[in-house]
Amino acid sequence: MSFEFEIIKECKDTGARVGKLYTPHGCIDTPIFMPVGTQATVKAMTPRDLKEVEAQIILGNTYHLYMRPGEDIIERAGGLHNFMNWDRPILTDSGGFQVFSLTKLRTIEEEGVHFRSHIDGSKHFIGPEESIRIQNALGADIIMAFDVCSPYPHEYDKAKEDMERTIRWAKRCKDFHSREDQALFGIIQGGMYKDLRRASAEDLLAMDFPGYGIGGLSVGEPKPLMYEILEDLMPMMPKDKPRYLMGVGSADSLVEGAIRGVDMFDCVLPTRIARNGTAMTSSGRVVVRNATYKEDFTPLDEECNCYTCKNFTRGYLRHLVKSNEILGSMLITMHNLNFLISLMAEMREAIIEDRLMSFVEDFRQRYK
Amino acid sequence: MSFEFEIIKECKDTGARVGKLYTPHGCIDTPIFMPVGTQATVKAMTPRDLKEVEAQIILGNTYHLYMRPGEDIIERAGGLHNFMNWDRPILTDSGGFQVFSLTKLRTIEEEGVHFRSHIDGSKHFIGPEESIRIQNALGADIIMAFDVCSPYPHEYDKAKEDMERTIRWAKRCKDFHSREDQALFGIIQGGMYKDLRRASAEDLLAMDFPGYGIGGLSVGEPKPLMYEILEDLMPMMPKDKPRYLMGVGSADSLVEGAIRGVDMFDCVLPTRIARNGTAMTSSGRVVVRNATYKEDFTPLDEECNCYTCKNFTRGYLRHLVKSNEILGSMLITMHNLNFLISLMAEMREAIIEDRLMSFVEDFRQRYK
Repeated sequence: MSFEFEIIKECKDTGARVGKLYTPHGCIDTPIFMPVGTQATVKAMTPRDLKEVEAQIILGNTYHLYMRPGEDIIERAGGLHNFMNWDRPILTDSGGFQVFSLTKLRTIEEEGVHFRSHIDGSKHFIGPEESIRIQNALGADIIMAFDVCSPYPHEYDKAKEDMERTIRWAKRCKDFHSREDQALFGIIQGGMYKDLRRASAEDLLAMDFPGYGIGGLSVGEPKPLMYEILEDLMPMMPKDKPRYLMGVGSADSLVEGAIRGVDMFDCVLPTRIARNGTAMTSSGRVVVRNATYKEDFTPLDEECNCYTCKNFTRGYLRHLVKSNEILGSMLITMHNLNFLISLMAEMREAIIEDRLMSFVEDFRQRYK
Repeated sequence: MSFEFEIIKECKDTGARVGKLYTPHGCIDTPIFMPVGTQATVKAMTPRDLKEVEAQIILGNTYHLYMRPGEDIIERAGGLHNFMNWDRPILTDSGGFQVFSLTKLRTIEEEGVHFRSHIDGSKHFIGPEESIRIQNALGADIIMAFDVCSPYPHEYDKAKEDMERTIRWAKRCKDFHSREDQALFGIIQGGMYKDLRRASAEDLLAMDFPGYGIGGLSVGEPKPLMYEILEDLMPMMPKDKPRYLMGVGSADSLVEGAIRGVDMFDCVLPTRIARNGTAMTSSGRVVVRNATYKEDFTPLDEECNCYTCKNFTRGYLRHLVKSNEILGSMLITMHNLNFLISLMAEMREAIIEDRLMSFVEDFRQRYK
């Protein structure tokens, strides 16, 4: 059945669990990392590269696709899957985060947000119904409710106001959404305040969404605060619904999030830092550009089996990065995605084999 | 035997021939197009992508590799093949063309050229011996003599002077070169003057190189003039040595060159225009960026079997190009290289099957 979420195994010591989420384009294993394909492409990766690193689901950004090429063109191409030739699941965000972070001259009203395009300054309006209409046209498997993201740091009153509006907008999104082959997730907001987060969750749970995003974290706050908020929030979340921690993509946050019960993660981090020449490895980040790797003819990560690590050296990758060669972005992106996706696969295995805590301890030791 | 050049078939109607050139890293079929890997990477292509489009040999640019990362590093990595993980043949140019076109504050003496780096302005000197020393360190299968390229347009006296110096430098290159696993090709110069070209060829032939480059063409002169020079020159070239027309990479020039007896071609054209969003197709160039392709959900080239054409539409490629996405460069580069490499494979087949003229007539009709 579409959108069934099945728990395969729960960890006895932590909130972590292994699940399977069924979608019209196939099943995904959780906990999972989802690469971000902002403009209908995961930057520097072909769809077959994505399959090689075992990406099971990718993201599309509603705001960007609405701006370029336009959701009408994507709809006429047969939807985002056809347009970009990706036959596995896709999740689109609501556009909320980009509208609040990228655009200029924003006016936020109860109805929605008036803003100007970050590309050409043209005037636009997106509200809850508009976001759902666009996401319906894009045709992803999982779509998100249009939310208000509080800038960090923020006052209690501001976080409360944004959270409450997000609840009202979630209701409007749910009422407007009609495609049965798309699961609409609600988004928990509430800034850095636990009581607001709980209130947000309570109201959204009453609306019974098939899954829940946790938005507005990893926006500049200290990581321990993010973990505290998750620890406080998770016990009230229903076990049978997937939990998606939005915009989080550092290796340590993935591990710490998953042991607290998060099922899904996405972030541009692994692909963005790859293009700046930084690799994620089993012993922490490697700034490939550094002169120290000039004559280092060993792989990026000795433990890794990706195409990059099996075929190229740090010295060569450094040369590519220093020379601004596209191949440098391609190869490091491939490695970074493989690293995060494998990390989650290893974590699922550790949960299933009842050895999660030793896996996590080992990870914390190695990954500085 | 290394560097044996075997003629498999000669066309009865034209100067075209099909050959096999053996090198320490394998045999290449001629006529052939060789993708350019300027900085130890064919831009936007992995080595496995290159094998998929059936690249048999690629180029490296001596000037660029000397500048970055430095031939010493490549030598310590085990040579250019190891450094970039390409196990098929490689050809390096002499650095002459780049020294004469990219650098500043050049002083040309009989000894060689003093110049400043195009990257950091640092002072350098490359003469014939230096070029061979660098190319020996890089370790390509085929290396080129250090030559003087006359800027176009040029006077007779200037072309003569440059050609004569190129001859003297070729002699010094030959004397200095020692690696038996590298074939050193001489380069015919002489600008747009047939008598100078013939004089250049005569002197170089007397030195008995295992192959001959034809340099200084496709530098801005009308194409018919280039073909005329080739027609005049080819009859005096020995049949049993490969002929390499340097820096030529438009589809029509490849076909016209091959029927006049050219065996090898290289050019940045297919990869460079790909990154600007222009595709080479069986019916001519397609400027993917054009608005006309906005909702064109057909492949770039219906007749093409490359990964790009089998999986993506013009509309999608246009979106990638307009959005400055790396994937656009990757996919169009893949297609353009596949196109030129296949074109030469089809031409070899036509020669072998005694139907070259009908192949060429058909090509001239289709390719506007």
